[in-house]
Amino acid sequence: MIEVITLVIYDITDNKLRLEVAKYLKKLGLTRIQKSAFAGQLPRAKRTELEAGLRRILKNQDNYNVQIYTLTKQTYENRVVIAKGKTYEEEPEEILI
Amino acid sequence: MIEVITLVIYDITDNKLRLEVAKYLKKLGLTRIQKSAFAGQLPRAKRTELEAGLRRILKNQDNYNVQIYTLTKQTYENRVVIAKGKTYEEEPEEILI
Repeated sequence: MIEVITLVIYDITDNKLRLEVAKYLKKLGLTRIQKSAFAGQLPRAKRTELEAGLRRILKNQDNYNVQIYTLTKQTYENRVVIAKGKTYEEEPEEILI
Repeated sequence: MIEVITLVIYDITDNKLRLEVAKYLKKLGLTRIQKSAFAGQLPRAKRTELEAGLRRILKNQDNYNVQIYTLTKQTYENRVVIAKGKTYEEEPEEILI
């Protein structure tokens, strides 16, 4: 089975809603890789839960754009990161740049 | 040849630098798909130029994290978008900060 990485990027205007989404993504097991982006390997059930949970949180809200990408592990690992002076929580070793 | 989509997501603290990066990505032919994300199909030469150009713009700057993903067109098209009340391309750069 091909290992996949779920990448979630979001643009959410409301501070409280944005924080709620971030907490939810973290709770599901994703790791913050940018201010408004999380990524990680999820079991299939969690992946399904992720989408349903996001739709539930965003229901009846306004001004949001959330995108969920399913990447092969290779695609994720081949990403190019140009970074300086930004850290995001306690990132696991394998996601460190 | 497999068609690929270049996805760029960024977290840049400085307003002016962030705007400069956004303008550069647009100039190269990418389309804004979120406040801090652009995507699009680029000829190989432009793809190389993109990375070099971003490194040039970010050189001697601080507090940035820019990530470039190379996705198959299928991976891009299979993304899930949950959105409401946000539009990107029509708005002038200045109010997208």
